Amino acid sequence: MVTLRKARQDLEKRRNIVDDALENLVQEKISSSEAPAMILARDVILAGGKRYRPILVLLAFEAAGGKDNSIVMDLALSAELLHTATLVHDDIYDQAKTRRGIPTLHSTHGLSHGIIGGDYLFVLGFGLGGKYDSEVVARMAQSCANIAVGELLQFNHIGDLSTTPEDYYSIIDGKTAGPFASACQCAGMVAGADETITKSLEEFGWEVGRAFQLVDDLLDLTGDPSMGKPRGTDVHDGKMTLPIIHALTMLHGAEREQLADVIQNFSDDRWRELTSLLEMSGSFDYVRQLIDNHIGRAQSVLDKLPDTSAKSLLFEIAKQSRSRRT
Amino acid sequence: MVTLRKARQDLEKRRNIVDDALENLVQEKISSSEAPAMILARDVILAGGKRYRPILVLLAFEAAGGKDNSIVMDLALSAELLHTATLVHDDIYDQAKTRRGIPTLHSTHGLSHGIIGGDYLFVLGFGLGGKYDSEVVARMAQSCANIAVGELLQFNHIGDLSTTPEDYYSIIDGKTAGPFASACQCAGMVAGADETITKSLEEFGWEVGRAFQLVDDLLDLTGDPSMGKPRGTDVHDGKMTLPIIHALTMLHGAEREQLADVIQNFSDDRWRELTSLLEMSGSFDYVRQLIDNHIGRAQSVLDKLPDTSAKSLLFEIAKQSRSRRT
Repeated sequence: MVTLRKARQDLEKRRNIVDDALENLVQEKISSSEAPAMILARDVILAGGKRYRPILVLLAFEAAGGKDNSIVMDLALSAELLHTATLVHDDIYDQAKTRRGIPTLHSTHGLSHGIIGGDYLFVLGFGLGGKYDSEVVARMAQSCANIAVGELLQFNHIGDLSTTPEDYYSIIDGKTAGPFASACQCAGMVAGADETITKSLEEFGWEVGRAFQLVDDLLDLTGDPSMGKPRGTDVHDGKMTLPIIHALTMLHGAEREQLADVIQNFSDDRWRELTSLLEMSGSFDYVRQLIDNHIGRAQSVLDKLPDTSAKSLLFEIAKQSRSRRT
Repeated sequence: MVTLRKARQDLEKRRNIVDDALENLVQEKISSSEAPAMILARDVILAGGKRYRPILVLLAFEAAGGKDNSIVMDLALSAELLHTATLVHDDIYDQAKTRRGIPTLHSTHGLSHGIIGGDYLFVLGFGLGGKYDSEVVARMAQSCANIAVGELLQFNHIGDLSTTPEDYYSIIDGKTAGPFASACQCAGMVAGADETITKSLEEFGWEVGRAFQLVDDLLDLTGDPSMGKPRGTDVHDGKMTLPIIHALTMLHGAEREQLADVIQNFSDDRWRELTSLLEMSGSFDYVRQLIDNHIGRAQSVLDKLPDTSAKSLLFEIAKQSRSRRT
């Protein structure tokens, strides 16, 4: 289909814009007094990643009527750098060995440098985001504070078999959907759009962000490790993702006990046991249905925006988020 | 002396203003969705500390002609919170057990919560500081980036007997003096002062910050542990502070070898050996002279400011920094 190919090309164009801007930022800082910190942070910045957040910022800005995307570029980079900062710090306490296909910062440079490298990425992100109006900054800071809250909640529920779907949504709204929502909303604010538009963009961010996280959680259970994404990390870490929460609710008696045992004493040789229990309880189908609902709501909220090619691309991103493999 | 007593009262008043504002901030966040993060960060915020940075912000603002200090309060809090964030993270990789007289965050709540608690303090600091004009935000972000750079440089020189005084000043300018300088300068900018004034305030911050760090380094070697400040932490950590750098330069032959051995194989029973070598090389006197020079320069740069009670208090702070015991 020509339309799909065109959409992919247009998204790829935005991605290249983001990558180029990140590369320029790295070069600028490498040539400054900040070189020792940027040398440390450079690899994880340039290793790639999906760049969802900055691409959403660019598209939300355009969809909100923004013309000159140079005025929103720092916001886009800020969203990516703040996200990267949280990844670097998460990887420390999750003891992750690789990120974006390269060794994690702390595993090559040690704990101190992992912490400082993450802190530097936070500073870069806030420095770039801090250039905008105080309402934009306040909104960003709020969503960053809620990342911390979401992470703390997630720790509270590690291995907790009584975790509810509401707990789960509080966690992912803090960690993932909130930053998507604030990125889209702030992009609309920078474009000078009215509140109907910025609210719609915020709502779009919430829904796409939830779909994104649910897909992530499914991939952790069903993903193909040969695609580069390690499988089962959440289960090993005791993270209560929605497929598991759902299965614990649906199963009874011996099967529920078996699932509880698999989760609490997980090892790689219990994969088939786990997935067959999840299949039996219809949890994969349930989560896939929820993903479709979130994507549907994300797409329908776009109705409030004027028809533009950026809006079509936001629609397309929502659609594609269902079928990503990594 | 009445004047000195009055100055102390006036400084105490500013300190109380800062403490009250921090308490209000904590209460506000405890009653919000950010409660889980603030509950974690609360103790280290409210445990006190000298509050040098926020007091300097308030005084620099007044000395620059600022009237209504409610407009600079968020900057003052931001300076304190960003400082506290770095302490929480430093304490992790320095494996510190106490801070501000209470157990460190990571020692009571674990590594993950120490990292997240520090991140939340960064977010709070940037959120409050991000309300100001983009030049103020850029200046703050730059000084925060240079904290990371200073810390990385310090790691590079751990146990490095060839560390030069220039290396030392690069480290402390990044870690300590830079944040003092940007706090004072930004306070002047928020007051709407002209560049002569903001430059003088910046210079004041650099010089007071250097004096502050040199005093800290002296206290680590000569301090009275009964005053609440642990002694010898820097030596145990292999940090090359100026008294040691100076002594390594001044001593020769067997005595230099002895000092190198004391530093590289330090234990508490070698205190007397260390201090007598530092006395012998005149290093304490040398560093005290440097402190006086920095304080003198800090005080003389104040000549460019109009005479106000805030200016007298800045002068007094510089003077007092020489004789602090903790």
